[in-house]
Amino acid sequence: MQNFDYQTPTRLVFGKGVIKKLPSVMRGFGKRVLLTYGGGSIKKMGLYDRVKELLKDFEIYELSDIRPNPKYDPSVLDGVKICKEKDIDVILAVGGGSVLDCSKAIAAGAKYDGDPWDLITYKVKAKEALPIVDIITLAATGSEYDMGGVISRTETNDKIGYMDPLLYPAVSFLDPTYTFTVSAKQTAAGCADAMNHIMEQYFCEDSTILNDGFMEAGFKSLMINAQKCLENPEDYTARAEMMLSCTYGCNGIYSLGNSGSGWPCHGMEHALSAYYDITHGEGLAIITPGWMKHILSDKTVDRFVKYGVNVFGIDASLDKFEIANRAIEETYKFFESINIPMHLKEVGIDESRIDEMAKHVAENEGLENAWVPLSEKDIADIFRASL
Amino acid sequence: MQNFDYQTPTRLVFGKGVIKKLPSVMRGFGKRVLLTYGGGSIKKMGLYDRVKELLKDFEIYELSDIRPNPKYDPSVLDGVKICKEKDIDVILAVGGGSVLDCSKAIAAGAKYDGDPWDLITYKVKAKEALPIVDIITLAATGSEYDMGGVISRTETNDKIGYMDPLLYPAVSFLDPTYTFTVSAKQTAAGCADAMNHIMEQYFCEDSTILNDGFMEAGFKSLMINAQKCLENPEDYTARAEMMLSCTYGCNGIYSLGNSGSGWPCHGMEHALSAYYDITHGEGLAIITPGWMKHILSDKTVDRFVKYGVNVFGIDASLDKFEIANRAIEETYKFFESINIPMHLKEVGIDESRIDEMAKHVAENEGLENAWVPLSEKDIADIFRASL
Repeated sequence: MQNFDYQTPTRLVFGKGVIKKLPSVMRGFGKRVLLTYGGGSIKKMGLYDRVKELLKDFEIYELSDIRPNPKYDPSVLDGVKICKEKDIDVILAVGGGSVLDCSKAIAAGAKYDGDPWDLITYKVKAKEALPIVDIITLAATGSEYDMGGVISRTETNDKIGYMDPLLYPAVSFLDPTYTFTVSAKQTAAGCADAMNHIMEQYFCEDSTILNDGFMEAGFKSLMINAQKCLENPEDYTARAEMMLSCTYGCNGIYSLGNSGSGWPCHGMEHALSAYYDITHGEGLAIITPGWMKHILSDKTVDRFVKYGVNVFGIDASLDKFEIANRAIEETYKFFESINIPMHLKEVGIDESRIDEMAKHVAENEGLENAWVPLSEKDIADIFRASL
Repeated sequence: MQNFDYQTPTRLVFGKGVIKKLPSVMRGFGKRVLLTYGGGSIKKMGLYDRVKELLKDFEIYELSDIRPNPKYDPSVLDGVKICKEKDIDVILAVGGGSVLDCSKAIAAGAKYDGDPWDLITYKVKAKEALPIVDIITLAATGSEYDMGGVISRTETNDKIGYMDPLLYPAVSFLDPTYTFTVSAKQTAAGCADAMNHIMEQYFCEDSTILNDGFMEAGFKSLMINAQKCLENPEDYTARAEMMLSCTYGCNGIYSLGNSGSGWPCHGMEHALSAYYDITHGEGLAIITPGWMKHILSDKTVDRFVKYGVNVFGIDASLDKFEIANRAIEETYKFFESINIPMHLKEVGIDESRIDEMAKHVAENEGLENAWVPLSEKDIADIFRASL
């Protein structure tokens, strides 16, 4: 078991109707609010009006149109500008992980005099950040309970994970009913994203009875509840279990004391969605089975056996590699069963830029330090196996 | 799934050698420190000297002799007096759960002008508390990651759980090597305490796939690792897994969104250790099987089946009540296997005050609101079945 230093100060306010606590929570931070959101979905579902009504005594400025794979320019830069000009006290992010990730970069940039890209690339360490409150409308990234965000810069094909303890949301509101209207495609992609967050922690050298059981429960919760959400999008319990299983995804609680995996799938997927702007969760699902096959070896087989036996109920008396291969197949079949396009070609990615993307990943994602180190060639092989 | 509002601000600094961070952590809170501890064990193991050496630039005042089932008078009162007289900035609790529980009551009392008993009995709500840093030397109560403490008042046989969000420790240092010298008796009692914390959350009306898996992993981790610690007290990995499994015990993370159990075993055990000053974990282990048998019914049997199948691997195809009864027997046998005295008589409790204790519990612990409500007669029956 490894040493760790862990603290998640975020308050989780979870359940049906909890938004009624929003005004009292917001009053703790000040009167001048930057409300951030994406497209029109929060308007369609009535959440935008509800927030405006609840915060009618506040001064609200807005940044809308934050897109999936949120962009440095214009979203982060525009948000920082509003915060500085309007002397914003607190950011209220309403939406999915992209809106929240973007808001985290804005929160840091608002308190920094230079170019916010300095912070995102760790050229300069942030000293301060605006507080963030969020209302989550998509079960997926776990950004509501972690200190990170991922920001894309189109002109350089960069998609960078930016982390700082200053960026934990102060308060996250999680009402599962807000996810009733999430499309089948986004429900599945969110599930795949969260599944992968757990895989990135599960597949490592050294874990514990406690962490393995917690993560295996996370896998099962996500798989069983995603199916239920697709069958009945208004199944409250299934949406609620999905939401909490996703919330724990990236904050470390699933695996305190584990040795790391190095987050190889996320490293590779960052290139796919930076180059092609695909849906992050779909990109992850597509490359995961190829990555698993690529790293299966005498060194790793025991983890795959544990995964196969405990998550999929595969007969423990079979040959180790047979269990491992069946576990990989079950993973693929699960993603297929929730209608994720399981080939890169289906999301518009062909052979043409694979070598370029593999080079970009090898140079920027540090995957030579992953549990199973990945070279540029390994990465290209995994991409090709996923075509 | 129930609504919840959850926040644990405590920072966990976990692992071998982490105490080297103590001076920098303490500097964040001030120079004037109240060092609280129990008997001589932290001196014997060299931890007292190490702390004094690390904090040689601080002004340290001491409160020692804090006993198991920590006492309002003298421990809490003495501590409050020192804090007020010496204008203490921060409390450093070094020891097990009793030292930390006592320190929490001191932290609140130090910032209150009246009798601290007003706070402990919720007659007055605390407005402020001193920050607490702790160094844990016993895997058991989870006080290092929760906002509660249990304080005893001998003259009235009161043992009261006192909770307030102000009482979360600011920083908890958890070095598993400090538990190498814990006796077999205390190792077992700590395991039983932590097992029971999870049971008090597991046995309820409504849980989730995620929570059940997490808690079942907690049970297994505690049972397997307790055996290993008893076989080899210096097994680092086993001590570390024990420690973390205990840390999560009472802070809610094992069961966010579950309906509650009402903590019936703790309610009953409070009387046992208030009247007889027995070891808390032993008292819990002794009454647990009797409580389980008492509440087993058509309403509860399915939870016992889940527990039996998933924790003890009992054949799921058997009759439900057979599985449940075997699960209760396995629980008893596990506690016996780690040498816990499994009868009240063995810890000096006889028939004589059972009715008096049952009355005290019924009047003070609110067990009429437990998942399976317990009347005064039920409580007396469970005590008698445990004789």
